[in-house]
Amino acid sequence: MNIAALEKIALSVRALSMDAIQKANSGHPGLCLGAAELGAILYGELLRHDPSDPAWADRDRFVLSAGHGSMFLYSLLHLSGYRDMSLDEIKNFRQVGSRAAGHPEYGLAGGIEATSGPLGQGIAMAVGMAVAETMLASRFNTPSHTLVNHHTYVLVGDGCLMEGVSAEASSFAGHYGLGKLIVFYDSNKITIDGSTDIAFTEDTAKRYEAYGWQVLSGSMYDFEEIAKLVSQAKAESKKPSLIILKSIIGKGAPTKQNTADIHGSPLGAEELAAAKKGLGIEGDFYIAPEAVEYFKTRAAELKKIRESWKAEFEAWSKENPEKRKEWDQFHSGKVLPAQLPAFAQGEKIATRTAGNKALQAVAAANLNLVGGSADLKGPNAVGLPSDAGTWSAANRRGRYIHFGIREFSMAAISNGIQLHGGLRSYCATFMVFSDYLRPALRLSALMKQPVIYVFTHDSIYVGEDGPTHQPVEHLASLRVIPNVRVLRPADPEETACAWVMAMDNHSGPSCLALSRQNLTVFPKDDPDWKNTIRTGAYIVKKESGGQADLVLMATGSELGLALEAAQLALAKKPELKIRVVSVISRELFESQPAAIRETVVPPGCRVIACEAGVHSGWERWARPEDIFAIDRFGESGPAARAAEHVGFTAEKLAERCLAG
Amino acid sequence: MNIAALEKIALSVRALSMDAIQKANSGHPGLCLGAAELGAILYGELLRHDPSDPAWADRDRFVLSAGHGSMFLYSLLHLSGYRDMSLDEIKNFRQVGSRAAGHPEYGLAGGIEATSGPLGQGIAMAVGMAVAETMLASRFNTPSHTLVNHHTYVLVGDGCLMEGVSAEASSFAGHYGLGKLIVFYDSNKITIDGSTDIAFTEDTAKRYEAYGWQVLSGSMYDFEEIAKLVSQAKAESKKPSLIILKSIIGKGAPTKQNTADIHGSPLGAEELAAAKKGLGIEGDFYIAPEAVEYFKTRAAELKKIRESWKAEFEAWSKENPEKRKEWDQFHSGKVLPAQLPAFAQGEKIATRTAGNKALQAVAAANLNLVGGSADLKGPNAVGLPSDAGTWSAANRRGRYIHFGIREFSMAAISNGIQLHGGLRSYCATFMVFSDYLRPALRLSALMKQPVIYVFTHDSIYVGEDGPTHQPVEHLASLRVIPNVRVLRPADPEETACAWVMAMDNHSGPSCLALSRQNLTVFPKDDPDWKNTIRTGAYIVKKESGGQADLVLMATGSELGLALEAAQLALAKKPELKIRVVSVISRELFESQPAAIRETVVPPGCRVIACEAGVHSGWERWARPEDIFAIDRFGESGPAARAAEHVGFTAEKLAERCLAG
Repeated sequence: MNIAALEKIALSVRALSMDAIQKANSGHPGLCLGAAELGAILYGELLRHDPSDPAWADRDRFVLSAGHGSMFLYSLLHLSGYRDMSLDEIKNFRQVGSRAAGHPEYGLAGGIEATSGPLGQGIAMAVGMAVAETMLASRFNTPSHTLVNHHTYVLVGDGCLMEGVSAEASSFAGHYGLGKLIVFYDSNKITIDGSTDIAFTEDTAKRYEAYGWQVLSGSMYDFEEIAKLVSQAKAESKKPSLIILKSIIGKGAPTKQNTADIHGSPLGAEELAAAKKGLGIEGDFYIAPEAVEYFKTRAAELKKIRESWKAEFEAWSKENPEKRKEWDQFHSGKVLPAQLPAFAQGEKIATRTAGNKALQAVAAANLNLVGGSADLKGPNAVGLPSDAGTWSAANRRGRYIHFGIREFSMAAISNGIQLHGGLRSYCATFMVFSDYLRPALRLSALMKQPVIYVFTHDSIYVGEDGPTHQPVEHLASLRVIPNVRVLRPADPEETACAWVMAMDNHSGPSCLALSRQNLTVFPKDDPDWKNTIRTGAYIVKKESGGQADLVLMATGSELGLALEAAQLALAKKPELKIRVVSVISRELFESQPAAIRETVVPPGCRVIACEAGVHSGWERWARPEDIFAIDRFGESGPAARAAEHVGFTAEKLAERCLAG
Repeated sequence: MNIAALEKIALSVRALSMDAIQKANSGHPGLCLGAAELGAILYGELLRHDPSDPAWADRDRFVLSAGHGSMFLYSLLHLSGYRDMSLDEIKNFRQVGSRAAGHPEYGLAGGIEATSGPLGQGIAMAVGMAVAETMLASRFNTPSHTLVNHHTYVLVGDGCLMEGVSAEASSFAGHYGLGKLIVFYDSNKITIDGSTDIAFTEDTAKRYEAYGWQVLSGSMYDFEEIAKLVSQAKAESKKPSLIILKSIIGKGAPTKQNTADIHGSPLGAEELAAAKKGLGIEGDFYIAPEAVEYFKTRAAELKKIRESWKAEFEAWSKENPEKRKEWDQFHSGKVLPAQLPAFAQGEKIATRTAGNKALQAVAAANLNLVGGSADLKGPNAVGLPSDAGTWSAANRRGRYIHFGIREFSMAAISNGIQLHGGLRSYCATFMVFSDYLRPALRLSALMKQPVIYVFTHDSIYVGEDGPTHQPVEHLASLRVIPNVRVLRPADPEETACAWVMAMDNHSGPSCLALSRQNLTVFPKDDPDWKNTIRTGAYIVKKESGGQADLVLMATGSELGLALEAAQLALAKKPELKIRVVSVISRELFESQPAAIRETVVPPGCRVIACEAGVHSGWERWARPEDIFAIDRFGESGPAARAAEHVGFTAEKLAERCLAG
């Protein structure tokens, strides 16, 4: 180990971070200064990656869970040779258009493995990456060739470890024995409010031991010790490792180090000058020549490592052409067509159940689809074909994941699986508990990760479990997240389409809203509905004769209600020209050109919108009084009675149709 | 201890639960049968409460965190004499209108201390109740009179302990040494997916020790042992206690006990008959006469205990008339008027900062207002007047709470403080992280608890921190939760009003959306605006001459933008009659009678809605093209540049005004 060079790398991380943050007049120097030594050894010695090929499948992953310390990462990406992260980007830190954004953003530059900043989620995503590694290793490695064999490193701070999501993910990681997960804890005992003594005095080491982790500790400022600890972590193949590194926040800032002041504000001109003087830094955006030199050599070594992997990959490909084909399909993200289930007109099945048939078909065709539920495998109906197996410490080839009752980390882990590459992930819970995982869903959306969320029990028709389990605001609240596709199929046939639409959506997460209760397969007047539905809406029942004077727009289980109401209304007023439209995805429909929208909903025509949830968002389509919605919490009772109680019946909807 | 009677109580809990669930054909017998013995000793021996006065301030609290086992609670409430929970209610279990709802719902019956079911939140709310107890005890107890001195008991299952929110709350409780919190862990090793071995094998006892708890364990089926463990728990005054009770899920169901089948489904006629036979239960909804007899005696004892407390209370009141006045004010929920801060026209202050001035004023007048932030005391600007002090193990009288970086449990704990009675709670984080606490906010809303949520950094004007920290969908997603009042003041003066509106809102939680950036105090054309604003919206700038032909509706920081845009538009087209309306609470405004709404927004008049967030919900007021919104994630950069980047400028808004 070239300690002198590592020291110069650390120095350069400090210099770049301080200057970039000062120039931007915004940012978080605390971690960058405090953990610079870890960064130096990580990028200088430990990481098996290749800056010239950031997408190399078998690279080690590093996730900066404490994402506010983004300049730590950017400095190291630049120093180690990631071309995306030029010095100009760093000089534009936190400016519009810079790859060196306020927090690390996935997609902006090679080497950024995940968007982080929302605390606790980075470590949970890293857990997902480690899950993916085991799955791919067991599938593709052969006795003679090891193609998948890498570690996932994470850097967390006190904040990450206080968040519940990290607790869930860590319990999960311990249970499943993720031996290639190595978490560094930058233990500087300072948060924004001051000393951690104020609110966080638990024995974190003991807690992680309780999760089944190997817990090690040492000093942030002893390279040899860190190297030794990482060796120990790598040697323990059955347990994830937590390496607690005692550190000083803002180390190098003469008066502000070891105080909360240095966490999230620039040093200021005076402190910066003093820091530079103390550290022996001259000029701005200083990079030590020794660091440059060191990384030049290191880059060549790393390139060789990656090239030798490539050679092995080619040899393996020759010996295993079928596996290679599968590898390519897995890593292309391409979706293979499935033998979708068929349903008979009039058949009554819950869309969650129909969804399971579709999932099984899609999963049989796409062997890289993996996932599971937060302890609701049966109720969510998200089991995989039996030959898919259950993923566990004993069966890394399994594809079904029992996440435990840990919704938030389930979603974050699913993000991590997806980010890793090679796999497509889905996860499931009751729709009302989409709230529990919402922050991770937001990150799926922000990172444009096509995780599929299966949300069953999607309305007050949940019934007896009552308002704590009956979503009313959730369709609306999911729809407002940018890049999220909400799909609420109205019958079993639509459900099969919905699964395909979700699989084909690569621009962000999809949320399937599925019913607990049985829905009837209804006839569709649009003969081309299986294509039209991909615009978000189509005509289920066309008005008879002349132009429609009323369009009933409904989603999910309310389509059946709308059909029934239309019939009731027509019985009373046969001259009415009612059209019934199924809206499987309102956002998608709204994003269509006017010409397409107007084919389905004629402009100027009166619309009644019908959905068992809050009215919000339907105002675009219908007058407030023509939104047949539920703007209150539900009530515990058998589904039909609960719906009746809140005035949600076909009779009432028919009355609305008849009222001017 | 009358063990024979306790056994009969447990038997009656089993009988009532099995029958009610069977009759409803819905429910969760697993916990009711498995933990009946704990219920028997809890309500038969341990709880210091008075069923004839469920609101008695110094009662012990019991929270069924595993809320799906609701019949456990209902059975015991009925047996112990809570009048609300009649046998008829139990016979109507899970039917519309029954107090015996699917999950325990706060407000439906005396003795239900919290709505539970969403896992992990019950224990967190109980932590809040224990916090409140310490605060009130330190404030009202005197050397000669102890008025506040009760325990908070909780029953959790595996699910609660897997959820991250319980981890956060438990770390919090350990740190703060909540010695009067006693948590029973119904450790039956079964969840919906099967054995906990599938996904949950951590050493929970060790984990709780790491949090600083006393951890005890024993058998669910040994009354004397439970009594002994509770004595130990009570004897430890500096640490919360976790009592792990090894149990058998569904105990008494001959073939289904100890399986996942019994968790959440009725036994079925056959199993039920066999269970009854095995337990010696005859008839339906059986209650053992010994249990009735026992509780008759017990009720009299408990009434005496409460009466002797009442006598002490009266004596204390005589000696401490000032304290008594304060006690009454605290417990009435009445809000005292505050000396609100004044701001000068043209003054520039961030509304978070103005909010802090208002909070300090309101808190100075209302000594029962307590709360804090999730490690963002400074950035959220939610400090209390310095004489309020900081709550800690050493200072139970303190009112400011350092919650740590634990948003979700912060909100659940705030619910618990509020539910306890006597205190008003507030909590704070960045608006984007309202997602982290959303499930608890939903419970505030469902329980109609007037917790005040302070969400600062309320738009992309957060700037450099970037899209992970810039809310865009959050105003919309908060507004859709029933019973939630979102208040987004447009300048410092409105902010002071917003705090008063929040304090005066007793029908549910209020969310204050406050800016990071400075906003200018603007002149208001409506001379009565301080009253009009309480309708949710008022006229800031009236059109000059004639009838308005354009209304600009804006919220928060966008009001300033709207004023600027109106000026720009008028400069180009002076004949325009533009009205600018500040909408502090859209939902509130929408709930007004038409006559009031139309005074502010004339019917038929073109409206442009302006808000730095997604358009959803504004369609009621403006055509899609007239909603000046941000339907995408933001970008990292200085606030003005970030806004410009997404096309959010006064110039663009002015163009919209001028376009048809």
